[in-house]
Amino acid sequence: MKMEAFTVDNIPLIKKGDNIAGMICRNAEIRNNDIVVIASTIVAKAEGRMFRLEDIEAKEEARRIADEHRADPRLIQAVLDRSCEVLMDFPILLVETKNGHVCIKAGIDGSNVEKGYLADLPEDPDASAAGIGKAVEQISGKNVSVIVTDTNGRAFKIGQTGIAIGLYRIHPIKNWIGKKDLFGNTLEITQESVADEIAGTANLLMGEGDGGNPVVIVRGLEMRSEKDTSVKEMYRPDKEDLIKKGLRSLRHN
Amino acid sequence: MKMEAFTVDNIPLIKKGDNIAGMICRNAEIRNNDIVVIASTIVAKAEGRMFRLEDIEAKEEARRIADEHRADPRLIQAVLDRSCEVLMDFPILLVETKNGHVCIKAGIDGSNVEKGYLADLPEDPDASAAGIGKAVEQISGKNVSVIVTDTNGRAFKIGQTGIAIGLYRIHPIKNWIGKKDLFGNTLEITQESVADEIAGTANLLMGEGDGGNPVVIVRGLEMRSEKDTSVKEMYRPDKEDLIKKGLRSLRHN
Repeated sequence: MKMEAFTVDNIPLIKKGDNIAGMICRNAEIRNNDIVVIASTIVAKAEGRMFRLEDIEAKEEARRIADEHRADPRLIQAVLDRSCEVLMDFPILLVETKNGHVCIKAGIDGSNVEKGYLADLPEDPDASAAGIGKAVEQISGKNVSVIVTDTNGRAFKIGQTGIAIGLYRIHPIKNWIGKKDLFGNTLEITQESVADEIAGTANLLMGEGDGGNPVVIVRGLEMRSEKDTSVKEMYRPDKEDLIKKGLRSLRHN
Repeated sequence: MKMEAFTVDNIPLIKKGDNIAGMICRNAEIRNNDIVVIASTIVAKAEGRMFRLEDIEAKEEARRIADEHRADPRLIQAVLDRSCEVLMDFPILLVETKNGHVCIKAGIDGSNVEKGYLADLPEDPDASAAGIGKAVEQISGKNVSVIVTDTNGRAFKIGQTGIAIGLYRIHPIKNWIGKKDLFGNTLEITQESVADEIAGTANLLMGEGDGGNPVVIVRGLEMRSEKDTSVKEMYRPDKEDLIKKGLRSLRHN
């Protein structure tokens, strides 16, 4: 088995209203079952999800958390406005966004955006992925999957990896349930997080900083779903989430 | 930029004493800077890290935890023997191994091993990676990196991804510290967990179950270190680990 991953070159700086699908199809020859992996930053930019701190007024909770971080209270207010729960407020501001994505500062990012502006995550990353995916399919005549990515930290280890936050026509989890191992025993570990693994693969080529490549195509995996899919299929149900329970215990005791 | 990943085919079932490096070099043409990714199961088997439950006697703590899980107390005893701390005992038995790796059941695995036996992780996965890497270099005459992998669950999301537990000549983290973004601002997110991303890439091809491919080569990334490296470079220092603190708070309150 073999797979390859390559950057789609010549993607310009993205502005509000830009047609990302068109740019991808002009700069890459798309094939059936290609997985088009796109950094959420450019999706957010094309969707006009930029905002300015000067348009925000910080309330009391934001000012309190900002004091701990020595951060701008308006930035913290922006994070709280996008969150349904604060899981940790210091030394990192870890929240669950209204989409169910657990991340630092609600994914608000000041990297690779014009000075004075901040970039939000796409409002509905599955819908963003589907919009771009359908447009790529219409232009190219090929069936593709799309993964919109962010980078996220992890428990117990330093560093971030690329992860999926929005999906089109690829399930986040591959089930090995009921499969037998080499010796005929039923497998214990049964759910592979393929969308996050593919996002991590793409992140190896995307880079950060001024060498950024925001679009990567992963080819050679047969993972396209005939039906619609959602990243929410992999978010752990709240009542089964013991790490959240632990963080709440720290926060409220 | 482009990378590729492919399975090394024709790796037989591994037995104690088998020469994994020799098998890899017989079945793949190695190039400079190749990253050879190897499932820890076959490393452990070649090192003879198999054991039988019938050789273990369960003590009191193991019997208590086993009751909660309706599991064999001898299996739990084996987990405790390999751990320096239990972070959660139920509904999952999450421990830190003596190597600093946080995982379920100390990575003890009953999949893909002969009936009646269980497989340990390699005792020192960095040393295992270095042993195989140096042997591959000697046979092939090329400079390579090696990543020994396991699969691990994640916080907040269901499913497992391939992750690195032992490294030879590749740093687990790529630092973007001090790099500028597209607009000349200093980047906030600065540490990319490349070894785990590469392990995840390989896991997409390794599969589980009876179609398992335990060796994958990742080619096209320039990440070889001229010096020795350790997976421990990415384990978060205990006093900075708030998720551990949260789990301890749940366990002891």
